[in-house]
Amino acid sequence: MNNTFLMACRGEKTDYTPVWIMRQAGRYLPEYRKVRQKVDFLTLCKTPELAAEVTLQPVNILKVDAAILFSDILIPVEAMGMKLEFSESKGPILYNPIRDEASLLMLRGLNPEEDVPFVADAIKLVRQQLDVPLIGFSGAPFTLATYMIEGGGTKNFINSKKMMYQNPALFHKLMDRLTEAVIRYVQAQIDAGVDAIQIFDSWVGSLSPLDFNIYALPYVQKIVAAVKTKLPIIYFAFNSSAMLPLVKQSGADVIGLDWRIEAADAVKALGTGCSIQGNMDPCILFGTRTLIKELVSHVLKSCEGARGHIFNLGHGILPETPVDNAVAMVEAVHELSSKVR
Amino acid sequence: MNNTFLMACRGEKTDYTPVWIMRQAGRYLPEYRKVRQKVDFLTLCKTPELAAEVTLQPVNILKVDAAILFSDILIPVEAMGMKLEFSESKGPILYNPIRDEASLLMLRGLNPEEDVPFVADAIKLVRQQLDVPLIGFSGAPFTLATYMIEGGGTKNFINSKKMMYQNPALFHKLMDRLTEAVIRYVQAQIDAGVDAIQIFDSWVGSLSPLDFNIYALPYVQKIVAAVKTKLPIIYFAFNSSAMLPLVKQSGADVIGLDWRIEAADAVKALGTGCSIQGNMDPCILFGTRTLIKELVSHVLKSCEGARGHIFNLGHGILPETPVDNAVAMVEAVHELSSKVR
Repeated sequence: MNNTFLMACRGEKTDYTPVWIMRQAGRYLPEYRKVRQKVDFLTLCKTPELAAEVTLQPVNILKVDAAILFSDILIPVEAMGMKLEFSESKGPILYNPIRDEASLLMLRGLNPEEDVPFVADAIKLVRQQLDVPLIGFSGAPFTLATYMIEGGGTKNFINSKKMMYQNPALFHKLMDRLTEAVIRYVQAQIDAGVDAIQIFDSWVGSLSPLDFNIYALPYVQKIVAAVKTKLPIIYFAFNSSAMLPLVKQSGADVIGLDWRIEAADAVKALGTGCSIQGNMDPCILFGTRTLIKELVSHVLKSCEGARGHIFNLGHGILPETPVDNAVAMVEAVHELSSKVR
Repeated sequence: MNNTFLMACRGEKTDYTPVWIMRQAGRYLPEYRKVRQKVDFLTLCKTPELAAEVTLQPVNILKVDAAILFSDILIPVEAMGMKLEFSESKGPILYNPIRDEASLLMLRGLNPEEDVPFVADAIKLVRQQLDVPLIGFSGAPFTLATYMIEGGGTKNFINSKKMMYQNPALFHKLMDRLTEAVIRYVQAQIDAGVDAIQIFDSWVGSLSPLDFNIYALPYVQKIVAAVKTKLPIIYFAFNSSAMLPLVKQSGADVIGLDWRIEAADAVKALGTGCSIQGNMDPCILFGTRTLIKELVSHVLKSCEGARGHIFNLGHGILPETPVDNAVAMVEAVHELSSKVR
């Protein structure tokens, strides 16, 4: 197996910079869209053969150095007892949002083997056909909590923050429940054969550093502590680049970066106790090949001082992205980083 | 006139920390909603008597230390020849978005005296009745450009970035046109009697530092240079806290901060060549009075090392905010900062 990705996670020297792309199995790929024509999004997540198929697609097409399990961060939330739907226009909808003690009590604990057996099954299928590491993942408790409280996506997180500020005990209870569920969920993925875990904290950037420290960080720390002795763990706290010293306190092996910070500045803030992942603006892939190569070169240079670097976009690849440009980016990372080292 | 706000802008010592609130004239106020029942949003912006009335409301209700002209950042964009509408659900819509040379050529230069006379008229009316400084404002060229290219709000700024990366010359031409318009627009407000200018760069946080430096900063610098010798100028680059050393290069007297950074860290990054404005999470105003007072105290302490501090929220006050809590925040700022100094 090509272990470059795992070596970079641990800060070991590699021959070139490994690269994968968030949402690399997704709508920008015609091969993915073909599978999706047959089934809806949730059915795809829950059908191991199809989930495995789309997980493997980008590995073959893009020649990336890691695969990530095709799934959705709300899968365990649904399994905890919330009704989930995906709307083309509005995105995810969770019915009966958690706003009080009573709705919190309706939630079940997560038993991954019984509740989401398709996740382990998909992992086992992928593992048989893969010669690069497989990344398992979960949403972070804070991000999952906001979906559950808001009942879907949100602009200003008003309901979540109302709970935090008006009834912090209830918010912390929900976070405790979610942390327990995430640890079980991630452990089931480890047992099934993933090689690393990424924790997506997509909405934690809605918090001030003070609130991050109170309402999000302690729970991520528990998850990291539970995983870290077994496998490398990546913490991606989107839009939190002005509080990286706090993000680092998660204890994760790798810190994911969006594109709002110069990577060299992130390295300064994070030190050499962790590796970094990122951080090209996904929209650069709408540019010319020359621009893509220039930006790859810029990011690689900016990350030179890091303990280890896994090249990635600073957010998920956009559905409108030309596949050829994604391929060009991966090629440029491999080519330019081999010269550098 | 109470000059505390202007003194803090210039970094002079003040008896207490001045405070105003972004969108302080807005939907959270019953008095504002009463005026809005009579006219639509754009008519309100364009009727000097009504714009003056709602501009003055929060000064009397909240006892803030500055007023800000009630208007919208897209007013000069409409005057340049784009058809503008406000939809309750979608927000601003600009018809025939700028995507090519031909649509750029359709834009007119801005002649504020002829095109937007109501702005100067409203300023003159407010000035007669006001005993605190009046802030005039404009959108920054980058933010206005994204509205014009996207045709309204956007999530991923794909059209704007496509133009930047595929046809940078066209993007820079649009930015030149906008910079010229903004300078004229701001000058007209100065001539009419405002005491300070705030430049709102609401969407510049969509850029990497590298792109901020190429596509946004040079234009803001031109505007700041044109204003700074006349009046204090505040630059609010929303969601750019991981690139404050670049934001500082705008040359603005005051840098606005959102809530995603601890103010003390911002002071470290910015140094003592500018004052700061901010930075409480608007959602704190959904909390208890005790929490509001605690957070006011935290922000005041965190800003102690700054050359000057103007207290504000880190973003516009939300429509759902209880007025009493906004009043409590202003009172807490005045009370606690008098003790500190």
